[in-house]
Amino acid sequence: MSANSATGFMIENQKEWHNFKRRETLPSIAVVSAAQMCIQSPEQADSVSSGWGECPLPICVGHEIVGRVVAVGKTVKTVKIGDRVGVGAQVQSDLTCTNCLGDQENYCSNMIDTYGSLYPDGTISQGGFSSHIRAHEYFTFKIPDAIESEVAAPMLCAGITVYSPLVRLGAEPGKRLAVVGLGGLGHFAVMFAVALGAEVYVLSHTPSKRGDALKMGAKQFVVTGTKDWHKPYQFTFDLILNTTDALHSFVLPDYFSTLKVNGHFHTVGFGDHPLPSIMAQSFAPNGCYFGASHIGNRPEMIAMFDLAAACNLKSWIQPVPISRDGCAQVVKDVHANNGRYRYVLVEYDNEFGKRA
Amino acid sequence: MSANSATGFMIENQKEWHNFKRRETLPSIAVVSAAQMCIQSPEQADSVSSGWGECPLPICVGHEIVGRVVAVGKTVKTVKIGDRVGVGAQVQSDLTCTNCLGDQENYCSNMIDTYGSLYPDGTISQGGFSSHIRAHEYFTFKIPDAIESEVAAPMLCAGITVYSPLVRLGAEPGKRLAVVGLGGLGHFAVMFAVALGAEVYVLSHTPSKRGDALKMGAKQFVVTGTKDWHKPYQFTFDLILNTTDALHSFVLPDYFSTLKVNGHFHTVGFGDHPLPSIMAQSFAPNGCYFGASHIGNRPEMIAMFDLAAACNLKSWIQPVPISRDGCAQVVKDVHANNGRYRYVLVEYDNEFGKRA
Repeated sequence: MSANSATGFMIENQKEWHNFKRRETLPSIAVVSAAQMCIQSPEQADSVSSGWGECPLPICVGHEIVGRVVAVGKTVKTVKIGDRVGVGAQVQSDLTCTNCLGDQENYCSNMIDTYGSLYPDGTISQGGFSSHIRAHEYFTFKIPDAIESEVAAPMLCAGITVYSPLVRLGAEPGKRLAVVGLGGLGHFAVMFAVALGAEVYVLSHTPSKRGDALKMGAKQFVVTGTKDWHKPYQFTFDLILNTTDALHSFVLPDYFSTLKVNGHFHTVGFGDHPLPSIMAQSFAPNGCYFGASHIGNRPEMIAMFDLAAACNLKSWIQPVPISRDGCAQVVKDVHANNGRYRYVLVEYDNEFGKRA
Repeated sequence: MSANSATGFMIENQKEWHNFKRRETLPSIAVVSAAQMCIQSPEQADSVSSGWGECPLPICVGHEIVGRVVAVGKTVKTVKIGDRVGVGAQVQSDLTCTNCLGDQENYCSNMIDTYGSLYPDGTISQGGFSSHIRAHEYFTFKIPDAIESEVAAPMLCAGITVYSPLVRLGAEPGKRLAVVGLGGLGHFAVMFAVALGAEVYVLSHTPSKRGDALKMGAKQFVVTGTKDWHKPYQFTFDLILNTTDALHSFVLPDYFSTLKVNGHFHTVGFGDHPLPSIMAQSFAPNGCYFGASHIGNRPEMIAMFDLAAACNLKSWIQPVPISRDGCAQVVKDVHANNGRYRYVLVEYDNEFGKRA
């Protein structure tokens, strides 16, 4: 094993999205992190099973990665060999466009996703179900000593995906917000929003996760399965953060009615179906907005880890040793919605040997 | 004619939305403005022709009204008999709810629209195609001396409807925004946004209004009738303000692509059809938002008139003397999209006699 190649578990056929094969993932590596672990997420399961469209094959998924740096390019300054670092869903951007220069590199037109994206040199990016992954230093983050690697990993995509809209939309003391859905994304949304000082309500279709929501710091748990669930909450929330992929089945005006004037319904969950048909008039009774976002930027990633360290926030995880069978198990379990709340592949040394 | 009754032009049958009959409009009046003029708008034409649903009949429309106060209730303090005042699309709210106490009275659950709303005493509110109208003092605005009545009138609904989202979404120096559609609403959006210091682009389906747009202060005029119109404008606008009622025919992701990161596509134009089918993913490439609003609040109305007076902003109007035929003509012309840019009914004294 050298720093110029990597081995991982790859999918060769999207119809066989749980059939992982061990093979070489990266022909050459610039900045290299030796992955000690990565995280299996619903997004990855979807990606592998074609849920989000075509991807280049074979592909090695995994985009919540913690490891140690084993090699760096000549110009790299912010990380050094041996550092314990994390990499999320993005590994590069042009860093020169208006968006990048304005701390919006997660909206760069030339971004490289952690897996399945084409580098200018023709390489396809490959993810963290692997011995090594390649990332630009700007998208490589030192993990605070206070946060264990397996706890840090899922924050790198699920965490930042909710942290970014929370801070941009003003989750803070005095604000009341609703988190819709309590899964991998939702459980971070609750913990971060509470840590930021907001009052958090969890909205869920069934009462099954009430206990967990309250343990995570939610003030109230609202079951949305009944026809008039929204009526007691008119003009209640400054922000609704949807983390489910089921928006096509929502009566959106019911949710909108629970927003304060000019509040935002923000989604970070994306399904395979269009949004329900809606009139523009549905936004007028309280002047509300609907929107979405894509991960977060570097300053937000650093602030999120600082907050997690300061408040001793812990991801709720289920560790699974990485192996061909382990990879298959977690994507099947995610597909079956069994995760509570994030699977983390661990014990990489047992599979790939000591790399750092 | 006494201050306790009023006569106006009313529609008795929505299928005959241009057949106005002169009859008594108000059985009793609290705060009364003697309407010298009011404005016919597309919204009114739609309302009268059933485009926006049912309304109580007979009905007297008109919701951009300037006149002089001829009577006040015992507790009225902010206006007095003889004042030249304006009334917009809202004549009352409870003034006690959280929204009202937070300067969001235009989103009060107990608001009374200027026409077609039910007062607690059982009266139906009636609008400005009339000798008098009734409004609460909080929704009655002194008109600055520098602004002629016929110029002020259309600002009371069309003006405030665009002024409110412009200031709430930060139209100011350094911001670049797009106004979609140049009609009664759009022409105010251009003039106000320019006066607020923003750089304004007008987006229109055809080039026919280019000259007018530039005269109103727009920096650029973009014709959206071609397939790739949006491509040169990726990440360009802080805000898009749609004033058309044709959103059902828009390719919304094309418009979204022209927004800067976290920008807002805001509509104040409402059609009869649902928005086009769209994926939640369409909001993710720049983290943008879609929303709408309903008129504006009292502080915004006062600030808008102050701005119009300070910058000598003039509504582009076509005056038509009020009469049964005049009312019919303006609703037909609005229906045929002939307005450039707002019809104003004038010469009320000729029809109703001197009232103040």
